[in-house]
Amino acid sequence: MDLVIGIDIGGTKTKIGLVNKAGETLANTFFRTKDFPDLDSYLNQITATVDELKKSFTEPISILGCGIGAPNASSKHGTIENASNLIWKGTVPILQKLNERMSMPMKIMNDASVAALGEMLFGNAKGMTDFIVITLGTGFGSGIVANGKLIDGYDGFAGELGHIDMTLGDGRVTGLGVKGGLEAYVSATGLKRTIMYMQSKYIDESRFRDIAFNDLHGEDITKAAEEGDPIALKAFDYTAKILGLALANFTAFTQPEAFFLLGGLVNSGKWIMDPLQVYFEEHLLGVYKGKVKLLHSGMEGKTAAIAGAASLIWQDYTDEY
Amino acid sequence: MDLVIGIDIGGTKTKIGLVNKAGETLANTFFRTKDFPDLDSYLNQITATVDELKKSFTEPISILGCGIGAPNASSKHGTIENASNLIWKGTVPILQKLNERMSMPMKIMNDASVAALGEMLFGNAKGMTDFIVITLGTGFGSGIVANGKLIDGYDGFAGELGHIDMTLGDGRVTGLGVKGGLEAYVSATGLKRTIMYMQSKYIDESRFRDIAFNDLHGEDITKAAEEGDPIALKAFDYTAKILGLALANFTAFTQPEAFFLLGGLVNSGKWIMDPLQVYFEEHLLGVYKGKVKLLHSGMEGKTAAIAGAASLIWQDYTDEY
Repeated sequence: MDLVIGIDIGGTKTKIGLVNKAGETLANTFFRTKDFPDLDSYLNQITATVDELKKSFTEPISILGCGIGAPNASSKHGTIENASNLIWKGTVPILQKLNERMSMPMKIMNDASVAALGEMLFGNAKGMTDFIVITLGTGFGSGIVANGKLIDGYDGFAGELGHIDMTLGDGRVTGLGVKGGLEAYVSATGLKRTIMYMQSKYIDESRFRDIAFNDLHGEDITKAAEEGDPIALKAFDYTAKILGLALANFTAFTQPEAFFLLGGLVNSGKWIMDPLQVYFEEHLLGVYKGKVKLLHSGMEGKTAAIAGAASLIWQDYTDEY
Repeated sequence: MDLVIGIDIGGTKTKIGLVNKAGETLANTFFRTKDFPDLDSYLNQITATVDELKKSFTEPISILGCGIGAPNASSKHGTIENASNLIWKGTVPILQKLNERMSMPMKIMNDASVAALGEMLFGNAKGMTDFIVITLGTGFGSGIVANGKLIDGYDGFAGELGHIDMTLGDGRVTGLGVKGGLEAYVSATGLKRTIMYMQSKYIDESRFRDIAFNDLHGEDITKAAEEGDPIALKAFDYTAKILGLALANFTAFTQPEAFFLLGGLVNSGKWIMDPLQVYFEEHLLGVYKGKVKLLHSGMEGKTAAIAGAASLIWQDYTDEY
């Protein structure tokens, strides 16, 4: 059986799995990224984990290659560069170093771009040539497909829409120092910041008046909204408005057929998605109105990132099957 | 000799020419678009003009096809839809109606996208696979190339960057009703509006205190800047800042190798281009800094739009030569 190794490098967890041609993750596990501050030990842990996973198969398997999704990855250089959420600083030549340990076809790409590729090969974007995937987790990620191909950019760093400034340079500062960057508004952290902002702007009573920033959790905000907490309701509405504006802006760029949304913030369900739909249509240029769909990703779940990473290799085999 | 008809449909002028495979416009002329409010008369005028141009050749010529650049053109439908600067309203099935008069391969595309295609085939973007052309005339146009292909979008309306909102929905209103749309700031009209804004914001003496909005011309603003007029200087600086921010935002989208700027505003020379370079680099995300060039178009001149339009047809022949 032919399999591809899929690796999702995150700030907290590194997820590894073996993925078949249908995009099914047949074996998978994870370890804590931060337990390996030394890059060599980290890479050794990866190869050891892969060896363990292989052993779980009784029938003979053949590994076609290894695909990796990571923040701030350059597909063209095979590196991770200055990723603020990762422990290794500067430029990390990860592909080269991993290939020294496991010699096989290997590719790396920005985690959100990998999500877009996975959506196209295995998810809800099958058959689409123009779409954008937005990952709303701790940060704001994006992967853009136009003319049926992922947009990589001159240097492999395209699709950093979380760092687009929406405020003429006069808004919230992001982790990378961008003033007004979208990620500072639309992300798990952005929502927490908006809870603070709404407490500054309005005088409504709210459960959040008794909770410090560092004690705030996304689920609490969803729960508060369900109970009618006015600060939570205003925060969700504001987040949906800015995301709606942003997606309307993005439409003027590549005119996608659909946006696919995934990640923690999307799980806040109707508190985000319902007002988002309204704000999005309201801000769309006339020529786009009613033509662009806001959809849920077909790749949700624990192994989505692994299958997405594996699609980096599987995409080269799709014509053969 | 093989030639392609290139037509540039503008709000004021319709330019028509015959273009050879090197992108040289060997014969060209124009007529006033507004003289033909009736679409059928307009199309008859086009065919009559083409016939006239053909007569100027002594050697035998063969017409391979006709490329058209127009505002709000849908390449996929062959239509012009709700173009605010054109006299015909609603959806105009221009390709079909013109083909009834001159049967030949025919394509139409957004004028700025046509400029990008021309830049790639005949101009300064030869050999580049990722770049963006920005046209700064009466409005703000854009054509985006990624992975070596023009981005058309799901419906043929991609690349409307002049209508991206930079102000969280709270800025100047554009001709299409977009609040905060870039075109309301960065265009010939946008610059005039900024002259008004600077008179509202500051108390500096200025020649513009004696000139009404409708009497303002772009060249006057350049001239005033050269003479040190503080309102003109502030207006140029503000325009360059917003354009710099916008181009930095666009970089986070497709990471182009270069932006090509053309049009009236670029002719204001150092008053735009020098501060633009500074603001652009300042607002670029770290991973892009020093990697993205701001260049002049290689298609400047009277016949640039004609040659660009012709490239719509010539692109299908480039492999043969």
